[in-house]
Amino acid sequence: MKKLIGDVDDVVLDTLRGMAAAHPSLRVDLDQRIIVRADAPRTGKVGLVSGGGSGHEPLHGGFVGYGMLDAACPGEVFTSPVPDQILAATTAASGGAGVVHIVKNYTGDVLNFQMAAELAEDEDIEVVPVVIDDDVAVQDSTYTAGRRGTGATLFAEKAAGALAEAGGSLQDVAAVAREVNERTRSFGVALTACTVPAAGRPTFELGDDEIELGIGIHGEPGRERTRLRPAPEIVDVALSAIHEDMSLSGSEVLVLVNGMGGTPLMELYVAYAAVAEWLGGHGVTVARSLVGNYVTSLEMAGVMISVLRLTPRLTELWDAPVETPGLRWGR
Amino acid sequence: MKKLIGDVDDVVLDTLRGMAAAHPSLRVDLDQRIIVRADAPRTGKVGLVSGGGSGHEPLHGGFVGYGMLDAACPGEVFTSPVPDQILAATTAASGGAGVVHIVKNYTGDVLNFQMAAELAEDEDIEVVPVVIDDDVAVQDSTYTAGRRGTGATLFAEKAAGALAEAGGSLQDVAAVAREVNERTRSFGVALTACTVPAAGRPTFELGDDEIELGIGIHGEPGRERTRLRPAPEIVDVALSAIHEDMSLSGSEVLVLVNGMGGTPLMELYVAYAAVAEWLGGHGVTVARSLVGNYVTSLEMAGVMISVLRLTPRLTELWDAPVETPGLRWGR
Repeated sequence: MKKLIGDVDDVVLDTLRGMAAAHPSLRVDLDQRIIVRADAPRTGKVGLVSGGGSGHEPLHGGFVGYGMLDAACPGEVFTSPVPDQILAATTAASGGAGVVHIVKNYTGDVLNFQMAAELAEDEDIEVVPVVIDDDVAVQDSTYTAGRRGTGATLFAEKAAGALAEAGGSLQDVAAVAREVNERTRSFGVALTACTVPAAGRPTFELGDDEIELGIGIHGEPGRERTRLRPAPEIVDVALSAIHEDMSLSGSEVLVLVNGMGGTPLMELYVAYAAVAEWLGGHGVTVARSLVGNYVTSLEMAGVMISVLRLTPRLTELWDAPVETPGLRWGR
Repeated sequence: MKKLIGDVDDVVLDTLRGMAAAHPSLRVDLDQRIIVRADAPRTGKVGLVSGGGSGHEPLHGGFVGYGMLDAACPGEVFTSPVPDQILAATTAASGGAGVVHIVKNYTGDVLNFQMAAELAEDEDIEVVPVVIDDDVAVQDSTYTAGRRGTGATLFAEKAAGALAEAGGSLQDVAAVAREVNERTRSFGVALTACTVPAAGRPTFELGDDEIELGIGIHGEPGRERTRLRPAPEIVDVALSAIHEDMSLSGSEVLVLVNGMGGTPLMELYVAYAAVAEWLGGHGVTVARSLVGNYVTSLEMAGVMISVLRLTPRLTELWDAPVETPGLRWGR
């Protein structure tokens, strides 16, 4: 295992230390392992909390800030955060108007967020959970009953964050996150595996000429293992799977070409060129796009494509100002 | 070679196609292979042009936009842009007040930018070149007489871009880029090699437990090949080399912890935690910081640390608004 880390047991703590040092706009609590907006809680504003296993940076801690999350709770690498930790994030985010939990659909995450929500209710904090399950690749998987939650998480956090910032109610903020999830589909492809530090070995084996189609963000198996193909063919597999599940014809879309952590920007742009061509050829209008590493899987090489069928309101929420370490555009 | 690309000969063209599709704020000329601000040239504004081999994305094309570059000219992978291409970028950036060339110190780049500057002078465009040579690792190297240009390029493009935007004169814009270069030192470490697509083989070989200290951004040899060490020890080697060359004691600094392309954000934050601790322990105040993949070397895993000794004016130029695909903060 070749990683730029210190003690393997401290990798999440050291990551949090680095985030704390790099971002004065965040309050990082190393004991409780939560990342909070420096100005949280904001009285009267609906709180927005997300979290999950570490190893997907900048998700979720990098999306804490104005116009997005109020707090995030990172678990150990590829491991759900514990209920007490989620509760601490929920309390830190609570400004009296309730808190929305954005939860990726992994069994451990769903259970632990549910327990935390019950604990929060005991403290008179109303919590509405929204479960994200946008990955069309497989129905059930290693860590999931139903579909996995991947790229739509970022979209939901952005839209819900913008609406919460604008004074949206608890039910409305949750509803828009749900709407984003329902209108988004994703599909990922891995060129290499990744190594969980504590395990020290790759999560799976891929031959020098093999890729895995439909991979999850933890190296869960996908649909099919095939030989490496040119980027346009890989993109065709991904977008065809998405289009088959949710017709894109005639839509205006937001598209994310997301690197899995080890793929450089040059390759993501090559993939994006193929994505733009495919969508144009299928009568789909790309109204907004994002290319880069946003929802990663440690050092895995590969790409995940997420497509959101926009509405005028969702476009407006996407365009609303955001100021976080991982996503930023002007107020 | 396992890359998300199409035809190996078209990798730069496909990258440009992707950038063109993703960023309406840029005008990408696929024939001339230049990336230009959509609103360039701006009459009366000093133009700012940079370029170099491809494979370092987002450098340089990703730094074209408000408050930074007016145009960029990417060569083939790890290959200098040609004079005609640099001339085209210079002409596109010229608003009548002269053009500054930011040139990383690689022999081919320096020669080709010089030829392009002469061609531009024939067209009555005054050009002032600024050569960046901030890498303390080695004196001469595979592609360089003198020191190599690395992370200071980003700092110089940002500071000069901000001053040009504010109406600075040709001489002043060039002078601030030179000042940034003189006050910046960098040092890189590779955990893996990278593969130039056209070559199809890694640029060098590193054992499973080996790292290269003092690496360049093209896989040029560094100072020493050693066994993998914990992040704080790697950071100590890098910062000690920088500190020895330019004392940091008592300074306020801008520090960049830059991923080489294949290292995920989690590891960069772990490295940044060690950087912040080292600097704090040596009486250095980190006034500004940046953590992420900005000056890359294809899919190389590793980190480069750059430290700029700030002045109040340089801090102001760093903080000035910027709107580019690769670097963005509010006006």
